[in-house]
Amino acid sequence: MRKPLEGLKVVDLTTALNGPFCTMILGDYGADVLKIEPLGGEQCRTWGPIEEGSGESGFFNYVNRNKKGATLNLKSEKGLEMFYELVKDADILVENYRGGVTKKLKIDYDVIKEINPKIIYASGSGFGQYGPITHRPCYDIVAQAMGGMINLTGFKETSPVKVGPSVADHVAGIYLAVGVLMALHNRDVTGEGQQVDVAMFDTIFSLLENALVNYTIGGFVPERNGNVDPSIAPFDVFECQDGFVALGVGNDRLFQTFCRAIGHEELIEDPRYLSNDLRCNNYIPDLQGLIREWCAEHTKGEIEGIMDEAGIPCGPVLDVKEAIEHPHIKAREMMVHCEHPTAGDQYFQGCVVKMSETPGSVDFASPLLGQHNAEIFGISEDEVEQLKLEGVM
Amino acid sequence: MRKPLEGLKVVDLTTALNGPFCTMILGDYGADVLKIEPLGGEQCRTWGPIEEGSGESGFFNYVNRNKKGATLNLKSEKGLEMFYELVKDADILVENYRGGVTKKLKIDYDVIKEINPKIIYASGSGFGQYGPITHRPCYDIVAQAMGGMINLTGFKETSPVKVGPSVADHVAGIYLAVGVLMALHNRDVTGEGQQVDVAMFDTIFSLLENALVNYTIGGFVPERNGNVDPSIAPFDVFECQDGFVALGVGNDRLFQTFCRAIGHEELIEDPRYLSNDLRCNNYIPDLQGLIREWCAEHTKGEIEGIMDEAGIPCGPVLDVKEAIEHPHIKAREMMVHCEHPTAGDQYFQGCVVKMSETPGSVDFASPLLGQHNAEIFGISEDEVEQLKLEGVM
Repeated sequence: MRKPLEGLKVVDLTTALNGPFCTMILGDYGADVLKIEPLGGEQCRTWGPIEEGSGESGFFNYVNRNKKGATLNLKSEKGLEMFYELVKDADILVENYRGGVTKKLKIDYDVIKEINPKIIYASGSGFGQYGPITHRPCYDIVAQAMGGMINLTGFKETSPVKVGPSVADHVAGIYLAVGVLMALHNRDVTGEGQQVDVAMFDTIFSLLENALVNYTIGGFVPERNGNVDPSIAPFDVFECQDGFVALGVGNDRLFQTFCRAIGHEELIEDPRYLSNDLRCNNYIPDLQGLIREWCAEHTKGEIEGIMDEAGIPCGPVLDVKEAIEHPHIKAREMMVHCEHPTAGDQYFQGCVVKMSETPGSVDFASPLLGQHNAEIFGISEDEVEQLKLEGVM
Repeated sequence: MRKPLEGLKVVDLTTALNGPFCTMILGDYGADVLKIEPLGGEQCRTWGPIEEGSGESGFFNYVNRNKKGATLNLKSEKGLEMFYELVKDADILVENYRGGVTKKLKIDYDVIKEINPKIIYASGSGFGQYGPITHRPCYDIVAQAMGGMINLTGFKETSPVKVGPSVADHVAGIYLAVGVLMALHNRDVTGEGQQVDVAMFDTIFSLLENALVNYTIGGFVPERNGNVDPSIAPFDVFECQDGFVALGVGNDRLFQTFCRAIGHEELIEDPRYLSNDLRCNNYIPDLQGLIREWCAEHTKGEIEGIMDEAGIPCGPVLDVKEAIEHPHIKAREMMVHCEHPTAGDQYFQGCVVKMSETPGSVDFASPLLGQHNAEIFGISEDEVEQLKLEGVM
């Protein structure tokens, strides 16, 4: 079956997470991703979990599947020359150095476009390619903090808290894929390449939803609200006998159904709960307390079943194991197997975007360090050995 | 200046958030987005914040800028006929009904591709177009719960907590844009259309990062960890004199710099902190406590300045107002103005993906209900009035 990005050559200089997540998407859907690592390998080859025996990083392996790999010392003259040769016929280059570093390495867009004017040069970073703090190093937690996400997450009674997984890195990587693909369509039409720039700070900022307009229009600075939504009620996470469930009751009709489902029909006529506005204002403590009581007497599975039958949005708070084993996740192939040459069977996430004619898939494992040195640069194994001795590969 | 998606006709049936966020991206970068609403308007026209005077929703307005709007009763014979006519020459259709609804409305992919085989038919939903729970209604909080995000967010000592903003909706919308654009490139090459399907459940699941491989390889079920990263230390959020700061110290060299920056050089030689592994194991309580003490004696601004100079990833936890006013956000035009015909000046988020040759921009405000009825369907105002009388528009 054809894949949508077949035939596209991607030169991938990325490390750790936002850039590799972008090129993972491109690779899953058929692009020929050539990952170029520094001589010792990129940083996340040492990140846990480490496979017993092979010493391979499970982290590196899931985010670098479907990519071929080579090593190259960009700080050597010969390495730089080989790199310039490599990008001559590339469609896309993706990098995620800190702002300013590509210029020092003489591989910034201004240099590369001279070699290949049609290239799409995509940059993922903490703070982007311009702006007053472009030079700063950034981790996911810093982007979450400055972008306004941490301030809006957590309970009022405790400190603000970051989103558990690295949402800034991931989403910046997905946006970067959007940018690459828009530039690609533009090139399909006009024949012209360009530079694409995505910052984790901007990324997080773009996810704040109505918090921004609540400030610019409403004039108040939104605060973290735990699991409660200030504009819908009931909308919350509840503890039950064996865990937690999330429940959202978005309108009057659903609220009536909900009251019947939990055996509290008297609430339907209660003047405090006649409209969503009234329910929002009067949710705490009585209505919340009553639902908490009801949930505490039931299991996750019971509540999910009752709400499914009633047509009310509801789901259990699943841990990683439960999510992995969920029949819906299995049916949608969101976990897939892949055989790695030294680490053996890998079992990790599949492809999110389902396409009827050109589906994505995981076809081969992440590269061993320098595995495709000869293939990517079109040289012999002897030449690879010589270049290794010279400190170029 | 050219925009990358110029000339593409998008028929937009989406409501609330994941679908509209996708078509917002398409519109920001030049696609001609035609939003088709039910007669009373889509649900989020009533969502706060509501503009005083005009009664317009600030929520609706930011996510529907750069779109034209019409009303249409798809349940009427004439309305359905007009809809079929509209999609004949469309490039893309985006919808985010619950699984199964498009079939009932006779506008599912099987029907539409008969009318327009080249169309890209994109569906955003809670649970996708297939799988055992495809039929269920879903809110962002439910996808966050079932996808494993809530379980991984928050402090051990308190209940798990959802990500404040609607991350499932937003990111599903961005993935849907990725799918549309991949299908578009495929069509540019092969001439063929297809269906694209993104679920919020899959979306959240794909963001869990190494939590999945920690379970499949390491065999343990990861738990929520507050602001601490189990694999890097120090990496945390600290309370300071006037708020909170996020700090990440990712390697030994940075740790030495960090110790000097906070005036605790003695930590460099401390056998408990000689490597990242040791620091992770011995972070709590002593090292964490000492950094907490130091932070408590400084302001956010002081800490940010010291860490910037030392080259250590660090940033203040900004609230919405502070993020909006941040000079970097301003320099990158992440907040933009737009004039709305009845609500006046709108000030909301700009475009994340920065493109050197074909940048996105906010060119016009969200449509009033039915504003482009005549233009979109190529009929006269008299005909619009007649169709309104007939309950079609």
